[in-house]
Amino acid sequence: MSDKPLILIANDDGVDAPGIKVLTRLMRRLGQVVVVAPDSARSGYSCAITTHGTVRLNHVSGEPGLQVYSCSGTPSDCVKLALEKILDRKPSLMVSGINHGDNSSVSVHYSGTLGAVFEACMKEVPAIGFSVRSTAPDCDFSPYEQTILDIASLAMKKDFPRDVCLNVNFPIVEKLRGVRVCRLARGNWVEEWIGAGDADTFRLTGHYVNLEPEADDTDDWVLCHGMAAVTPLKLDMTHYPTIPLLKELES
Amino acid sequence: MSDKPLILIANDDGVDAPGIKVLTRLMRRLGQVVVVAPDSARSGYSCAITTHGTVRLNHVSGEPGLQVYSCSGTPSDCVKLALEKILDRKPSLMVSGINHGDNSSVSVHYSGTLGAVFEACMKEVPAIGFSVRSTAPDCDFSPYEQTILDIASLAMKKDFPRDVCLNVNFPIVEKLRGVRVCRLARGNWVEEWIGAGDADTFRLTGHYVNLEPEADDTDDWVLCHGMAAVTPLKLDMTHYPTIPLLKELES
Repeated sequence: MSDKPLILIANDDGVDAPGIKVLTRLMRRLGQVVVVAPDSARSGYSCAITTHGTVRLNHVSGEPGLQVYSCSGTPSDCVKLALEKILDRKPSLMVSGINHGDNSSVSVHYSGTLGAVFEACMKEVPAIGFSVRSTAPDCDFSPYEQTILDIASLAMKKDFPRDVCLNVNFPIVEKLRGVRVCRLARGNWVEEWIGAGDADTFRLTGHYVNLEPEADDTDDWVLCHGMAAVTPLKLDMTHYPTIPLLKELES
Repeated sequence: MSDKPLILIANDDGVDAPGIKVLTRLMRRLGQVVVVAPDSARSGYSCAITTHGTVRLNHVSGEPGLQVYSCSGTPSDCVKLALEKILDRKPSLMVSGINHGDNSSVSVHYSGTLGAVFEACMKEVPAIGFSVRSTAPDCDFSPYEQTILDIASLAMKKDFPRDVCLNVNFPIVEKLRGVRVCRLARGNWVEEWIGAGDADTFRLTGHYVNLEPEADDTDDWVLCHGMAAVTPLKLDMTHYPTIPLLKELES
């Protein structure tokens, strides 16, 4: 047992993705690191869990201050397994990513990167997802490194509200124009399917439309203006203002 | 094109599950029905989408007022495909279920039943998930039928706030003691993994712990007291009160 802060890392791009390697290198400056990540890409897995079949853990490597495991399950499975079967204490921080691709706006619902974050948040571990608006495998993460360190350090220092985690997205830039704390944009994916062979077979594609492009307090706006977008997310999805509007249903 | 309301049905238990058959029979009383459901069980798929590979649609059956399709993808894929590739107009309502198993509290994040609901809600279709706190394949759904009809009818009449959908859970009872509109309980799954063969292989199990068992305004409390729990859920997960607390991150 070390007195350095324990930091858990997961992702959805898989244990060998460049983004998680960068995040691991950065987090080692802040504490003792355990990586538990899927054995291959699990993009778009959301908060999926393996309800049928088994999940296998594999110890990939170990050295002082860093243990790496791969897992045959989903990003959420990785975090569940880490917290219950691998770690000897509750981590001071859980970080996910750096995801190769944007997780702003409604994409938070599809994201396996954030699935892992939500799982840690459910278990009352301060948790942050980091994503870059680029799916290029050779994406240069260096413009984001200091901001990642700053946000991770703050999350370990500050008492976040329970049930709240952070979603951090970066634009494709050589130098960040700044950091903004913002809300999720209201938007949607459209024209999502292309034919794939015959009339009944399709492949998911599509493009994102921001339904409020003028609003300057959204993550999408912030990203489009070259800045990092930091969005606090809450697990409790209850829409409290609607509760009184539905009272006529009660009996 | 019919002038009857168009109702889309999906689920995560698969197109042949007893729950979706009951829901289909009920919804036919309210409108023209199109079912698009996974070709087999997709429990715990959350809002997962098929980002790699193709998705195949299969027209299972058709008769006046009812078309049934199965899909090789996830519950969210089913709704995306229905809205973009199958339906000739926007549905008046989307319903998901009836799920064989509880989707209250944090389980909303794991649920494929609600993944389908969230997808419809993103596309601005009024959407409701129905689930029963029983995984018995021979579950008797008859105690819930009138309440399902009442809630579905209300959802088609009333202008719901945009970005809000409904999560309806039923207890295992012979006769419902009532209906309550409530919030998600704060709770968690614990002791989630059992060994499965060797030291590195696990199977997901666990049990739910309500962290505020005395609070009588939560879905878990309502279910434990023999009533149906109706919870409005919002897609925008931004936690607005935390935004000003993070301003020190801005640069």
